Amino acid sequence: MNNHAPVPVGVLGASGYVGQELLRLLAGHPAVTVAFATAESAAGTELEGHRLVHVADAPMQRAEIVLSALPHGVSGRYVNEARAVGRRAVDLSADFRLSPEAIYGLTEFARPRVAAAELVANPGCYPTAALLALIPLAQRGLIDSSREVIIDAASGVTGAGRSPRPELLFGEVAEDYRAYSAGNTHRHLPELKASLAREGGYTGDLVFTPHLLPVKRGILETIHVPLTHPLDAGAAVELFVTAYDGEPCVQVLRDRLPSLQDVVYRNRVALGVVSVGEVSRPRVTVIAAIDNLVKGAAGQAIQNMNLMLGLPETAGLVC
Amino acid sequence: MNNHAPVPVGVLGASGYVGQELLRLLAGHPAVTVAFATAESAAGTELEGHRLVHVADAPMQRAEIVLSALPHGVSGRYVNEARAVGRRAVDLSADFRLSPEAIYGLTEFARPRVAAAELVANPGCYPTAALLALIPLAQRGLIDSSREVIIDAASGVTGAGRSPRPELLFGEVAEDYRAYSAGNTHRHLPELKASLAREGGYTGDLVFTPHLLPVKRGILETIHVPLTHPLDAGAAVELFVTAYDGEPCVQVLRDRLPSLQDVVYRNRVALGVVSVGEVSRPRVTVIAAIDNLVKGAAGQAIQNMNLMLGLPETAGLVC
Amino acid sequence: MNNHAPVPVGVLGASGYVGQELLRLLAGHPAVTVAFATAESAAGTELEGHRLVHVADAPMQRAEIVLSALPHGVSGRYVNEARAVGRRAVDLSADFRLSPEAIYGLTEFARPRVAAAELVANPGCYPTAALLALIPLAQRGLIDSSREVIIDAASGVTGAGRSPRPELLFGEVAEDYRAYSAGNTHRHLPELKASLAREGGYTGDLVFTPHLLPVKRGILETIHVPLTHPLDAGAAVELFVTAYDGEPCVQVLRDRLPSLQDVVYRNRVALGVVSVGEVSRPRVTVIAAIDNLVKGAAGQAIQNMNLMLGLPETAGLVC
Amino acid sequence: MNNHAPVPVGVLGASGYVGQELLRLLAGHPAVTVAFATAESAAGTELEGHRLVHVADAPMQRAEIVLSALPHGVSGRYVNEARAVGRRAVDLSADFRLSPEAIYGLTEFARPRVAAAELVANPGCYPTAALLALIPLAQRGLIDSSREVIIDAASGVTGAGRSPRPELLFGEVAEDYRAYSAGNTHRHLPELKASLAREGGYTGDLVFTPHLLPVKRGILETIHVPLTHPLDAGAAVELFVTAYDGEPCVQVLRDRLPSLQDVVYRNRVALGVVSVGEVSRPRVTVIAAIDNLVKGAAGQAIQNMNLMLGLPETAGLVC
Repeated sequence: MNNHAPVPVGVLGASGYVGQELLRLLAGHPAVTVAFATAESAAGTELEGHRLVHVADAPMQRAEIVLSALPHGVSGRYVNEARAVGRRAVDLSADFRLSPEAIYGLTEFARPRVAAAELVANPGCYPTAALLALIPLAQRGLIDSSREVIIDAASGVTGAGRSPRPELLFGEVAEDYRAYSAGNTHRHLPELKASLAREGGYTGDLVFTPHLLPVKRGILETIHVPLTHPLDAGAAVELFVTAYDGEPCVQVLRDRLPSLQDVVYRNRVALGVVSVGEVSRPRVTVIAAIDNLVKGAAGQAIQNMNLMLGLPETAGLVC
Repeated sequence: MNNHAPVPVGVLGASGYVGQELLRLLAGHPAVTVAFATAESAAGTELEGHRLVHVADAPMQRAEIVLSALPHGVSGRYVNEARAVGRRAVDLSADFRLSPEAIYGLTEFARPRVAAAELVANPGCYPTAALLALIPLAQRGLIDSSREVIIDAASGVTGAGRSPRPELLFGEVAEDYRAYSAGNTHRHLPELKASLAREGGYTGDLVFTPHLLPVKRGILETIHVPLTHPLDAGAAVELFVTAYDGEPCVQVLRDRLPSLQDVVYRNRVALGVVSVGEVSRPRVTVIAAIDNLVKGAAGQAIQNMNLMLGLPETAGLVC
Repeated sequence: MNNHAPVPVGVLGASGYVGQELLRLLAGHPAVTVAFATAESAAGTELEGHRLVHVADAPMQRAEIVLSALPHGVSGRYVNEARAVGRRAVDLSADFRLSPEAIYGLTEFARPRVAAAELVANPGCYPTAALLALIPLAQRGLIDSSREVIIDAASGVTGAGRSPRPELLFGEVAEDYRAYSAGNTHRHLPELKASLAREGGYTGDLVFTPHLLPVKRGILETIHVPLTHPLDAGAAVELFVTAYDGEPCVQVLRDRLPSLQDVVYRNRVALGVVSVGEVSRPRVTVIAAIDNLVKGAAGQAIQNMNLMLGLPETAGLVC
Repeated sequence: MNNHAPVPVGVLGASGYVGQELLRLLAGHPAVTVAFATAESAAGTELEGHRLVHVADAPMQRAEIVLSALPHGVSGRYVNEARAVGRRAVDLSADFRLSPEAIYGLTEFARPRVAAAELVANPGCYPTAALLALIPLAQRGLIDSSREVIIDAASGVTGAGRSPRPELLFGEVAEDYRAYSAGNTHRHLPELKASLAREGGYTGDLVFTPHLLPVKRGILETIHVPLTHPLDAGAAVELFVTAYDGEPCVQVLRDRLPSLQDVVYRNRVALGVVSVGEVSRPRVTVIAAIDNLVKGAAGQAIQNMNLMLGLPETAGLVC
């Protein structure tokens, strides 16, 4: 890889939290170079040494691959422009996640498809953590669909983007904690259900409730899984250890549960599992943690990009 | 009440977070005075204008009522000393919560018993929020015991006390979030189950998972309740509004969900409820928020003390 | 005071952080009642049990006294409307702080004037802390004007108001710390200099540099004072103890320095002073802490209101 | 460098915040490998894939260079053991900072000496920021020694280490801010004065007051410098731009002041400067920001190690 010229990469939407993280990670990537980076209100200023241009002026041809962190509803249009001039793309927005045009880029379960893809839809942050926790159980038919899977997820504020909304002010968020989009109304739910059905075959009920944490980055999901038959703590851990054997970006903890500290600034999901006592039917609780900006967005996008370019999967990433 | 001499109150264990909150609230109470306050390593120093004495030197006779914020396992002994010299007591530790000697002081469901009690066991912080959320549903037979009630609770660090444990350092807790005592291993579970059976008649399964939040104070519980029959959002809210009609320290929100901001520094539980969509069987999610140091400890203790002394129930409290 | 009807008070600008704090404090005040409270975008909603009205619809006549937490530049106009119908007022904005029409309400140094005033200009948060620290030294001629007084002040974000500015987002402020308005460009500087000259007779140079802290409330000022002659640590403390003897809202610490914890949610300035070693000319460092929303705004306004109404000075306040 | 075997490095004291940061940075370093890492209470556990051993069992010979993050007073002994078996060392403690045996490793002002050194004393975090801000002004004779240089420094809690002291609990530090070691009593003062005299020739008075910030990492210093003659804002900025021309790890900001966000997780000092108005004699305020764990400790140690090993100075570092 040291003998090749660096691959030129274009970044759309570089001034939001995800876009900034893309530039930060690409700056340390040994085999690529940033061909251009776009922003709207910040156009003309510099970020990580790159002069930002309007997306309408993006020189798509100069990039071999385009990563888009544009907002949902906007991203699709510019990703299509890149593709129209023959460029491959990873779209970090939700615009293609339910579309057959794109490969859904949950890396660990889609390697060959991602490697060959022209267009990868990078998974949402909440679904990434939930899917990596649930697919191994679902694939083995262990989830009892007569009782609901309950997911309580908590995210740091960078997950909500960088627009100045009053409820995201420090004076409101600090020392606070709240649920939002309760009652299964969050826009990530269809993505989560579709992917869990496709990869794990589970089509039962889910209850997904996100919460806003007073931290900058990180997602922790507490996932309550009713089981078809008992699984003691040791067996549950071994199931995940086996399922993710050799995976560079999945950390299965044996003797404690993960917290945000295990994952921030890393392209890693950390998983822990306990068997639930004092109940009459079998169940486990799985804890999954990721950095919403890394494995939940920019990092997984680069992991996918690496596969598409034939580079080592974790080049430029700390797992 | 203005014509009477203030009632002398003794405070055991005044230097922890709960004890400090007791002194802070009693300082603003119009009808009582602090007769003495105890601490061990801080003995001899002043707090809120009171010289702290060792608990072994507490002049129990000088108080008409004793509030104990001593640690679990220690509190019972000194509460018994106070009772041995004829003093009534509110014990904020867990020492009497499962004992027939004491009245369990969940104020809203125990007023006459508390008023007449010699000894009140003040409820734990997690159970207070969960019980106030679940009892109205349980009393009406609405909880489907063939599916588990799932409680994900998140607490600020003052709930863990003031001992210098490494995992409670700012450098560890800030920007972090974690589950602990997962798998139904938390010591509050038996208290919660016993009280829910006694007050609400619910004896089905519960899964209780506490989490540590990077905030100083406040508890938010996300409580997933399977229902025996459907309840739309409006009906669910009205059920709680009716159940708590006239209650000064219960706030039922009609059009949004509560967060810690609604309750910190107040002796209040805030409740919100939503009906869950996209599932095949009926369920609601209830959100309950309290300040762990106020309605979850010192405030509820004073609410109970007021009843025992025949004072207005909310004297000295902001609900 | 218990024999009188409560005094009706009007609150202008109730939905900002200072206005909310006014309503919170007035809710616990034993001798006043809120006649009306205004807000613009939040008009029609309820706050602390009061239906908010547009300021243009404020029934000024119904109040005996009006407290204005409207923005600078807007407040003056409505305060003048209140005065035009014969109402006394405390203006918490900067609009009258340099005006001879108003009494500058630094309570501890203006009691008789405040008590008799028709219009009180409530001091700014930064000047309140700095003045209470510097006036005792200035009055005694101890400040060496051949060297500058250097004030580094740090404030929680509620000092910057509740408008959704991008730089006040949690994602920007958390884990950050910054100076702003450096180089003596902050708008509080003229107020501070004028007041220090008037009350203390000091007309030498000052350098004032504010900083933004990742906390919700509280101001701490580190004030470096060159002295005309040496003052050892004990003498410096005694000077402040003597200067503020009997003051209910000034706490002079003898054996440690104050921090925000000493003052938040209290109408108090906490002061500490040390003699500086390892230098060739005498100087002290004074640390002053206040809650920017209480002694720095709403609390001091109520302290002044109490004086104007002949009520006990600390009624409704925790000092 | 790609043709050489990685250089084996030993890390002493790997379980504290600085030691963890060393391991994190070394994990991403392209030209070195960790030969061993030591810890005491955590001995036997794994960190970043390394099994921790007791320092008494450290196989010093296996390393070509030893980095010590042991505590002050302990580090010197083990660094001497490493040197006794012929190993070069970078000591991150204070043990050799005032000793003629060691080269003081403020990299930007000591490159040739560091490159040739057997033993480098890595500068303290507070002095690193202050010296990089002051040396350019001192070297040009611009500091007016008839008035004191005043430094107010604020540090995140990782600067205080990882021992469980009560005052470092989250419940105490969050929402708080305090000065400590005021009055020129901080142990970093002699190091700062000695280095400023040696590198800049300034021997006048300094007042240094550290503060504890409620953030995990980062130091910001507000440095008030009296000048011998006026320097307008543009000239002041140009002075620093010129002084640090070509320096990879010094960022001079032209149009704003730095904050912690500019430097966390980077081996960089960010500098800003303003001319002070509204005063009668010339002065500037310089703001210097570093990450206390990176440029203030582990990062600068690796920068020095790279020089000692003839590697590119910023290998393994993000500046």
